[in-house]
Amino acid sequence: MISKNQIKLIKSLQQKKYRKLYQLFIAEGVKVIQELLNSNYELVELFTTQELFPNVEKSKLNYISEAELKSISALVTPNECLAVFIIPEKVKIDYSNTLQIALDDIRDPGNMGTIIRLADWFGVQNILCSEATVDVYNPKVIQSTMGSIARVNVMYCDLKKELLSAKVPVYGTLLEGENIYAEKLLQPAIIVLGNESNGISPEIQQLITHKITIPRFGTLQQTESLNVATATAIVLSEFCRNN
Amino acid sequence: MISKNQIKLIKSLQQKKYRKLYQLFIAEGVKVIQELLNSNYELVELFTTQELFPNVEKSKLNYISEAELKSISALVTPNECLAVFIIPEKVKIDYSNTLQIALDDIRDPGNMGTIIRLADWFGVQNILCSEATVDVYNPKVIQSTMGSIARVNVMYCDLKKELLSAKVPVYGTLLEGENIYAEKLLQPAIIVLGNESNGISPEIQQLITHKITIPRFGTLQQTESLNVATATAIVLSEFCRNN
Repeated sequence: MISKNQIKLIKSLQQKKYRKLYQLFIAEGVKVIQELLNSNYELVELFTTQELFPNVEKSKLNYISEAELKSISALVTPNECLAVFIIPEKVKIDYSNTLQIALDDIRDPGNMGTIIRLADWFGVQNILCSEATVDVYNPKVIQSTMGSIARVNVMYCDLKKELLSAKVPVYGTLLEGENIYAEKLLQPAIIVLGNESNGISPEIQQLITHKITIPRFGTLQQTESLNVATATAIVLSEFCRNN
Repeated sequence: MISKNQIKLIKSLQQKKYRKLYQLFIAEGVKVIQELLNSNYELVELFTTQELFPNVEKSKLNYISEAELKSISALVTPNECLAVFIIPEKVKIDYSNTLQIALDDIRDPGNMGTIIRLADWFGVQNILCSEATVDVYNPKVIQSTMGSIARVNVMYCDLKKELLSAKVPVYGTLLEGENIYAEKLLQPAIIVLGNESNGISPEIQQLITHKITIPRFGTLQQTESLNVATATAIVLSEFCRNN
């Protein structure tokens, strides 16, 4: 069973302003929910059409019908279960430890999700985000992380201020940068990734201490650029391959 | 102006069976259309709401209203222009020349588009596809290639037969493969990429002569796997970085 007030609350969490107000977010599907349950995220309420989570406290578990699930889901095809979790508090980042990523106004939820999955794969523990970066607790981002959100800390901040205070090399991919394959890539470091259309903003470019570029191998010069998520894959691979 | 028959034909091209029947496909937006016009693709008809293409033959150019564009577009927000092109005939692939990619049942249009863009960036001229791979002339694929489709040859084939006849090393990413960062990667070669859920099919796995794997750097072992498009980025980067 699910009450009208619960439906109203959960549906409101599809909007950033209500996630911010209540400090709650929703996750859907067994895999994502299970990974969040296995992490430090704190469950508020779990709604499920089937017995899928034997270890969840009974007081937080609600069995609902498929029609009820449809009424609260952010997905076109709802996925057996939906959970409400608490948005964790900010943690202080230790920059002296390995690699971090900084996102300068990434707007596409799918790109953000893919970058979180890549961070998880390559052992990047923290992602700094400019305030204009898409909200990580947007349901589309949560779904596209495939559960990796449970293992990567995402922090929104004044990116300029944070980069200035970090006191580690700041890498950024810029057209005039050095060939990434020829550079000795240092760690600890922060790798800045720019907006899908405009790249890294001029203000943040000034804080890049190491400009790098991924060379194009195609002989035809029209290829515009790599998608930010595939560029992230290549940059993280290069940073990690020799370490 | 656009006739009812033209609307009917163009809308039918959103479906694979009609693209196959007429050997035609649609492309939308100035960038994608311009790149196709600059390539060997043959234009049949161009519909536009503005004067955007001064060099297109007048007989193929049709000025239409925004409402008319909306009636033929496959996009939620139509993009000033739509063109109909002829699907090119198959070309014989020369495997002795550098790198090729083979797709074993890739189903997601966005992944296919991203892989074509990566192929273009890394100078891969040919992509072989199993018959069950998503149709490259699907409007969603065409849009997500951002014009790279104009420079990469995509061929559907009996993948098993084609790999057997190619007589070059066949690489595939498999869990039990050799660490890609430690391997000497040979060219010419074919790199096989598998289905999003099931990976490379058992039948095609038998034809892989060089099994490789991208090692996980995260210390937490739950990370499931990389998305196929980001894995492609890393594999192509590794093949090209030392050549």
